[in-house]
Amino acid sequence: MISVEAALEQILAQIQPLPIISLPLADALDYVLAEDIVARAPVPPFANSAMDGYALRSADTTGAREEAPARLRVIGTIPAGYMAEYELKPGTAMRIMTGAPVPPGADAVIQHELTRQPASDANSVEILTEVVPGNNIRAAGEDIQPGSRVLSTGSVLGPWELAVLASIGVASVQVYRRARVAVIATGDEVVEVGQPLQAGQIYNSNSYTIAAAVTRAGGIAHVLGIAHDVTGDLREKLSMAREDDLIITTGGVSVGDFDLVKDLLAEQGKIEFWRINMRPGKPVAFGHIGMTPLLGLPGNPVSAAVTFELLGRPALRKMMGHRYLQRQVVPVTMLEDITDRSMRRHYVRAKVEFRDGRFWARTTGPQGSHIMTSMLGANALLIVPEGGTIIHAGDEVQAIMLEWPEK
Amino acid sequence: MISVEAALEQILAQIQPLPIISLPLADALDYVLAEDIVARAPVPPFANSAMDGYALRSADTTGAREEAPARLRVIGTIPAGYMAEYELKPGTAMRIMTGAPVPPGADAVIQHELTRQPASDANSVEILTEVVPGNNIRAAGEDIQPGSRVLSTGSVLGPWELAVLASIGVASVQVYRRARVAVIATGDEVVEVGQPLQAGQIYNSNSYTIAAAVTRAGGIAHVLGIAHDVTGDLREKLSMAREDDLIITTGGVSVGDFDLVKDLLAEQGKIEFWRINMRPGKPVAFGHIGMTPLLGLPGNPVSAAVTFELLGRPALRKMMGHRYLQRQVVPVTMLEDITDRSMRRHYVRAKVEFRDGRFWARTTGPQGSHIMTSMLGANALLIVPEGGTIIHAGDEVQAIMLEWPEK
Repeated sequence: MISVEAALEQILAQIQPLPIISLPLADALDYVLAEDIVARAPVPPFANSAMDGYALRSADTTGAREEAPARLRVIGTIPAGYMAEYELKPGTAMRIMTGAPVPPGADAVIQHELTRQPASDANSVEILTEVVPGNNIRAAGEDIQPGSRVLSTGSVLGPWELAVLASIGVASVQVYRRARVAVIATGDEVVEVGQPLQAGQIYNSNSYTIAAAVTRAGGIAHVLGIAHDVTGDLREKLSMAREDDLIITTGGVSVGDFDLVKDLLAEQGKIEFWRINMRPGKPVAFGHIGMTPLLGLPGNPVSAAVTFELLGRPALRKMMGHRYLQRQVVPVTMLEDITDRSMRRHYVRAKVEFRDGRFWARTTGPQGSHIMTSMLGANALLIVPEGGTIIHAGDEVQAIMLEWPEK
Repeated sequence: MISVEAALEQILAQIQPLPIISLPLADALDYVLAEDIVARAPVPPFANSAMDGYALRSADTTGAREEAPARLRVIGTIPAGYMAEYELKPGTAMRIMTGAPVPPGADAVIQHELTRQPASDANSVEILTEVVPGNNIRAAGEDIQPGSRVLSTGSVLGPWELAVLASIGVASVQVYRRARVAVIATGDEVVEVGQPLQAGQIYNSNSYTIAAAVTRAGGIAHVLGIAHDVTGDLREKLSMAREDDLIITTGGVSVGDFDLVKDLLAEQGKIEFWRINMRPGKPVAFGHIGMTPLLGLPGNPVSAAVTFELLGRPALRKMMGHRYLQRQVVPVTMLEDITDRSMRRHYVRAKVEFRDGRFWARTTGPQGSHIMTSMLGANALLIVPEGGTIIHAGDEVQAIMLEWPEK
């Protein structure tokens, strides 16, 4: 048996980032940047007002106070998006809107609330306080200087990263391509949902689980259905996966006599079969069919789901250029015992909550690998160390966070 | 000024969940269930073997041990997916694969490792230990009993929920429809990315930010471009949004003279304009154009991004049937001071890490509302209370987690 860490290391060593493509900014959400982005122009692009108020010369406000305001002649108005057409001369002011360019000649803006409209003179404004040079002015380039690096290769393009790229006028970006993943279920006992179930048969749930988990990881699932335990069937599915970046199979990798799948894989490509020191899970295959990497997960649905999380998702993330491949692990305090004893490392499905400054965990109930409902409501995998450790309520356990609680 | 909480409460009071639709299971990822799911058939559907080994009668193993094994005649093999065609009689055993149905007559399975093949007799197997009734048998319905409720209205359909639904043969589900959201930027100073920037103009970043944030929240963005500060332009965009479930505008809601947008909204529908006690943010509008709710966010890009997070995202989640509308808030320890003083509640963009059992936070740098780069690398909003609080390194602050760290 090999450890989960050793298996993952061997897989990642054989996975390379996918080719780089160029995408319009509007299509780039959640892709990973494959270039450094350097600003060509300043942000803000021009000195502009931080307030609605009056642009003026600060020297004209010397000594101004409420009882003895400075009176300035208002010579125009500057809305956002428009440049003043003339220079601001001593003794004058211009009304200015938030974000509008500061007119030439002005060196400060006073907000509306610190001014007064003299009843006698509609064309003037009274300034009720002294202002310092630069007051309420956002300088050109205060945020981003031309030539500065805004984002680096490996950054994930979230909504806020897209905001910054748009603000510096970046219309398209170089990113790592999303991985296209062939999903193949195997097994003579497996039947598609919607078909009647004959005696001895079970529904194909693995294709749904793996396709959805691939989608959530940012990949594109190419669901190829069920290959039955005749080699011709699997051969055909594999040929349909030739354009894909990764093949994920479920089932057919254990030691049973009827695992023709295993034999075919060994014949068609370079495949290793591992017994991994984990529960649920254990039998996993990894290798290549032609040039395409193949990850063979167990047929048991809970095992397939957990091994995808631990081995498949990091591989996919590496393909798509991510810097961080694995989920956050946090210490959680158990609210109940885990009496289920296993000599293998046990990944216990659990519901973690954050309360009173700590993470608290409960299992999702019985943890047999055939208990599908152990997956319901789980947002974490508790790592119970190998060797038959018993965990008691109050004990601290490490938890792999799959999703974080919302409230 | 009203509080963020009061504004959100008023918005949510006017938002209803969207109509329920039926979707095939393969298309239902990340939708919210709008029905309770009750199992019609048991899981497992039949008693099956937990191991590769031999199905037998436990009574036949009484007293068996390594030195004095029980010898049974092997009368057949049951692969997964096939039923035994005859009953297992005393003194006999059948080879059985993991997941294969237990044959009638058998009440236990012994794993391969606890058996021996007698050299002299290829048709027999030696059982090296006593087995108890039920050994290595997964009973029909052990996981899910017919009639039991598997999932409830309000459950989010993740990969693992889909797995369970497939396993009980659910081919389609009733879910809340995804919200279609019209995204309209406003302002005479705003220019589309890809166009040359004239003096006084800035690029439209808000449409990218809001569309991406809507997508991440599970909605479908309907980007309608820029409405300039002439009412005809906005009128046309609003008419294009008639089929949408929510309209989000940016800009045009502050107190400036040129906010024609505000006037048009007041004329076309029932709209309230709020000054919210927050920074960045403050001016926000909410109401209806005809029957369609409209959320009017500030034009400032950082303010638009933060107000969408705090007000828009929960509204969208309510529309799509989510039980939990808001992000998790956790206490974080500051690694640096926040000297920036604000009388309004300040949502400081920050990078939070989890290390040594605690959350640690650093700001993303200068926090002016015009500093776009304050959004880069942020995975949390620190809540600095109203009233000009100064936060020092080592202080504990509440943080709204936008994304959780991976490693």
